[in-house]
Order: sequence, then C-alpha cells, then structure tokens
Amino acid sequence: LYLFRQRSPVLTNYETVRVALEERTYDIQIAHDWLDQLGSDFDAHLGTVEHVACICDASIRESWGQTVGQALARPGRRVDTLAVPSGEASKSVEQLSQIWEWLLHQRADRKTVIVAVGGGVIGDLAGMVAGTYTRGLRFVQVPTTLLSQVDSSVGGKTGINLPAAKNMVGVFWQPSFVAIDTATLATLPPRERISGWAEVVKYGVILDADFFSFLEGKTLEIVANDASTVVAAIRRSCELKAQVVSADERETTGLRAVLNYGHTFGHAIEATSGYGVYLHGEAIAIGMQMAAVLAHRLGRVTQEFVIRQCSLLTAIGLPTTLPADLADIPALLSAMQSDKKVAYGKLRFVLPTKMGHVELVGNIDSQAVIAAIEACVN
Amino acid sequence: LYLFRQRSPVLTNYETVRVALEERTYDIQIAHDWLDQLGSDFDAHLGTVEHVACICDASIRESWGQTVGQALARPGRRVDTLAVPSGEASKSVEQLSQIWEWLLHQRADRKTVIVAVGGGVIGDLAGMVAGTYTRGLRFVQVPTTLLSQVDSSVGGKTGINLPAAKNMVGVFWQPSFVAIDTATLATLPPRERISGWAEVVKYGVILDADFFSFLEGKTLEIVANDASTVVAAIRRSCELKAQVVSADERETTGLRAVLNYGHTFGHAIEATSGYGVYLHGEAIAIGMQMAAVLAHRLGRVTQEFVIRQCSLLTAIGLPTTLPADLADIPALLSAMQSDKKVAYGKLRFVLPTKMGHVELVGNIDSQAVIAAIEACVN
Repeated sequence: LYLFRQRSPVLTNYETVRVALEERTYDIQIAHDWLDQLGSDFDAHLGTVEHVACICDASIRESWGQTVGQALARPGRRVDTLAVPSGEASKSVEQLSQIWEWLLHQRADRKTVIVAVGGGVIGDLAGMVAGTYTRGLRFVQVPTTLLSQVDSSVGGKTGINLPAAKNMVGVFWQPSFVAIDTATLATLPPRERISGWAEVVKYGVILDADFFSFLEGKTLEIVANDASTVVAAIRRSCELKAQVVSADERETTGLRAVLNYGHTFGHAIEATSGYGVYLHGEAIAIGMQMAAVLAHRLGRVTQEFVIRQCSLLTAIGLPTTLPADLADIPALLSAMQSDKKVAYGKLRFVLPTKMGHVELVGNIDSQAVIAAIEACVN
Repeated sequence: LYLFRQRSPVLTNYETVRVALEERTYDIQIAHDWLDQLGSDFDAHLGTVEHVACICDASIRESWGQTVGQALARPGRRVDTLAVPSGEASKSVEQLSQIWEWLLHQRADRKTVIVAVGGGVIGDLAGMVAGTYTRGLRFVQVPTTLLSQVDSSVGGKTGINLPAAKNMVGVFWQPSFVAIDTATLATLPPRERISGWAEVVKYGVILDADFFSFLEGKTLEIVANDASTVVAAIRRSCELKAQVVSADERETTGLRAVLNYGHTFGHAIEATSGYGVYLHGEAIAIGMQMAAVLAHRLGRVTQEFVIRQCSLLTAIGLPTTLPADLADIPALLSAMQSDKKVAYGKLRFVLPTKMGHVELVGNIDSQAVIAAIEACVN
C-alpha cells in the first residue's frame, strides 16, 4: 500500500523558528502537509528513542493521530497512543492522574518521549505529564489548531485547571521540538480556525506594526485558509512570541506580560459568559477591543488605532463586541480581580501606545474600565 | 506572655551549607533549638512576604507547627497552616489535589511562600505543591526528621506516589532556604531518629572516608543524640549531598546516581516487605550491606570494608540483615527490575571500590546479586 501512496509535493514553505532558552533551546518547524514525514525530523531531534507515548485528542485519533503514529514507527521502537476526550474538561486532576497511571502501565521510563497531538488542551495536559512523570520526560508537540500553533506551542507553559480556576497548576516545561503542519487547519471547524487568528493579530498589535499591516493586506487569504499566508503568519507569530519568552522564560521580569494584551478582559468574558459560549480567541478579540478603547480613553492611542484594530478583527470574522445580555459589569470586574496575574489584588492592564507597542499600566480608575466595557456592548 | 518567654541560649553550633545551583542557589542553616527565631532569617532570605502557606505534619501541628507559625507572624502578613496526616499515604494525587484547592481557597497567589514543616513526606508533597501551584511558588523547608534533614532537604526532588510506584511523579523544585533545627530530633520516636543515620553513614561510604571515621568515633554520641555531634554530622552530610547535586541537578549526567548506594536493594526490601514494616533508613541500611557484600563478591572491596560498614551500622542500632521470612528472592529481583532508575530494564548497582568512593556498575550477573542477598539473610 505504501508503495503507491501519494507523496506530498516538495515543501515550498518550510520554516523553522528557534526558541532560544539556553540548554532548553528548541526548534519549531512549520510547513504545509508534511506530518507523514515527521519521522526523520523526530529522529534528527531526539536521537534513538525506544518508547514513544503519544497523547492524542480523541477527535483526531483516527486522522492525525494515526498519521503521527505511523510516521514515528521504527523497528525497535514501541509507539503507544492514548486518546483523551476533546475539550477543556480534560485539563483536570483526574485526567492527569489517569495518564500517569497509563504511562506506568505502558512501562514508560525516563527515556520515554511524550508526543502531544491536538490543540491547547492536549498540549497543556501532555506537557504537564511530561514535566512530572519521573520528574521530567522529553516532549514533542504536534499542535493541530491555529491557536495552539501560534500560542501554547511556544513558551513551555503547561498545566491543568482546578474546578474553580483555569490553569491554576502546572509547570514550565519546554518541548524538545514542535512540529506544525498547517494542513491540520483544513480539518478544523471554520469557527475554531478563525478564532485562532485573534492571537495572530495580537502579535502585530503588541510587537510588530509591519506584521499588522501584512495581515491587513491578507484578510481574503486568511479567510480562505491560503497555505502560504498561513505558514508565514504562524512563522512570524512564533518568532515574536519566542523573542518575548526567551527574554522572560518564567514570567519573572514582567516582559512576558505583554502577551496578555486583551487577556484580562478576555478571561473575564470567558469566565462570566460560561466556558464554551465563546471560543478563547473570540473572547480575546473582544478583550483586545476593550483594551484598545481603554487605551484611547486614557489618551494613549488615537481613535484611528481603535478603528484599525476593529477593522482587521472584523474582516477576519472575529467578534469585537459583547451582546448586552452577556455584559454583566460587576461580574466582569470581579472576575478580573481574581485573575491569577493580579498580585495582591491590584488590577493592571497591558495597553498599546501605538501600533506594535504596548505597556503594562497599573492603578487604572475602575470607571474607565467600566466605560471601556460599555463601549464594546451592542 | 512573650515578654517572659525564655530565650534559647546563644547558638554555639550555627552552621550554613550553600547549595550552589546558579540562580537557584540556596542556603541550609543548621543549629540546635532556634526555630522560635526563624522569623528574622526567613525575612532575610525571602524579603517582604504578605502570605505564608504552611504545610505541616499533623502530628507536630501543635508543637513545631505552632513554633514556626508564631516565628513567621508579622504585621501585614497572613500565615495559614494546613495539617496533613502523617505517613506515606499522604504522598497521593488526592492529597496533592486537596492542597491545591486549599491554597486557592486561601487566595494564595504567585507571591505566596510555601513553608513545609515535617519529614520527607511533607517536604516532597509540599515541594511538589510549590513547584506546580501557579507554575511555581517560593518554598522554605523546615525538615523535622533526621532523614529529611540530611537527604530530602537537599537537591530539590519533590513528588508523590502512584498507587503502584513510589515517587513516580514530581518535579525538580529548589527551596529558597532550608532551616534545620536539631532540637526537633528529640521529639522523634527513637527508632525513627536512628533510622535517619543510615543516610549519614552512606555519605561517608560513598564520598568521604574521613567522615566515616568521624562517625566511627562518635557512635555513643549518636545514640545519645548529642547536639553538637548531630549538627556536625548533618552539616557534613548536607555539604556532601550539595556537592553531588550541584554537579548533576537533574540526574542527567549520572553523577547523582552515587547517592543511590544501597537504594536498589533498599527500595526492593521496602516494596516486598510491605511499606511500613521497615522505615526507609532501615531498609537502606540492609541494602547498603547487600551492596557491600556484592562489591566484595565481585572483588571490588575487601572483607574488611564489609565488616567496617556492618560494625558502624550495628553500633548505631541499624539492621544489616533481612529475616528469612522477608527474603523472597524472586520478588526482590522483580522489584529491582521495576525501579524507575532502570533504563530499558538493565539492572545497575552503585558499588564501592574503597571507603569514600563508589562507581556505577552495569551488567551484573544475577547469581551474584542473589548470593549477596542470601549472605544478608538471617
């Protein structure tokens, strides 16, 4: 059968981003339709590996899970695969504990390599498993959603949720290698694929005005899921995030906080509207718009900036306003107060000063915050 | 009441060991009867701390837990204390999860400092909590058993057990500061206190012949729990372990493996005799004797070496033989095979070549292993 298998065309858009973290430095390899060729890159990065434990989103177990499993098969190597139910509920203590038990049952040892195939939920969960089983296993990420390709696959944050708090426990654990295949995006529900673009737009706003302009010129290609546009956008997003993460791996200097642009509002929207009403990227898009309006009210950016950001988000198909029935202002304020990035209860926002630049601003008048939310209610 | 409180005498045996781990470097402070003065040292090492979460062995909650809690109390600081049941069963996923929930309920945030008061179980558990809550909190260890003072408080290994495997999951997480008060040892059951000396003797055997000789000359003081002897022995033990850990923080170069002298046999004895029959140190003492006999049979050490080690262990009151009814050879061999330090199923032992020096030896004939076990059955 393999003899007649159609090969992918020669990779024309093969991109590599290096995440520089001293001895934890790793590469992100980005291309279109190449996961069936993952094996040789895996071998090049990991060396001789006798046991691979693949943790795969159940919804893609038979598609990408199988492609990855076959690509990694080698004589003298066991590849075990565990399917984990899709969705945020899998980022639980119970699921974590079940995966630990599964690894023990598969006789995983310190030389076992964990491979995560799925979106952010799988990457965060499998990463925490990798960071804790025998106090640390090597780890390869194969993110299959746009959001995980541009966000959670860079930076080494892993973790699970507590019933009352998202991402409250976890470890910093860097992968050995990240394999991004943009062909996986064609198999995503369009709404989920579009949602991931909120984080891409975010990188332009916070760090790179030229990239923002590039995206403004490519909205049709973005909506159409054009492969070369997608590869280019993912590459630049990973590069920008990698620069920030290299400068502040463990979120200790405050630099990494710029990545939270739109997230204080966005997390509050997710929490108060009920998880699942909005996809993460959708909530972040609305949150970015609230942050832009807040910055404008504080005299930090022009009205033109606010409109430019709104136009790009809208052209891509992302929401920028909150329906009135979901705009519970006291609940939103309360949720913002309990965000784990709030030290000692003081509310701070990442706000732009111009396209491509943001600052962390503290001691903001709560009336201005309320006004910014209200300006984004429709 | 505080005005009339009797102060401890001036510290005559105040020792500090620095564990050099680049930006994770920390100090171990060792003295007799000083925990009521912990506050100023805590402040000096940690700076301004508004929230302390103290995780304390339930059996010493009212004694050392209270002493530490009072010593750390400051205006503008909350000190919350959680009592955790004594014993290995607390190193579980369930307990870990309960502590995470407790921290969330106490509104712990990234600036919270975890303080562990208790033995190895509490240190390992609280350390894993510290390494994972919000992806890492600062952490102070107050080990109150000899075993934890000379072993688990140095090196940053934290973790919990899975039902079928001890210490199978965890993280490397270094404390900011370790406070050792040898006065806590007087409140331990004598059997538990004596058990800790197995690891002290181990440091002499594997790394320091002079220290072994020092211990040989102090067996009466050891048995009598003489404060200055105990402080000196803990200091040297911590120093020796710190040297090894500094050279191989994450057990990657193989150097750290020397610390496992006696542990391959010892863990198998613990596992097959039923956890709780032997204290950890007792099983290690028997394991060290088996390792010494194995080394002798392989022509690596003299008979005199075996007798010297046996004499010191015995003089301190530690066991060196296994009762016949607990000597299930096939079960012991099987347990050794499943030790997590066994890579790809190959059995390796840390064996001495002379007093103060050991080597990692692979490919050992299983008949020699069996003979070594049988020589230590009575």
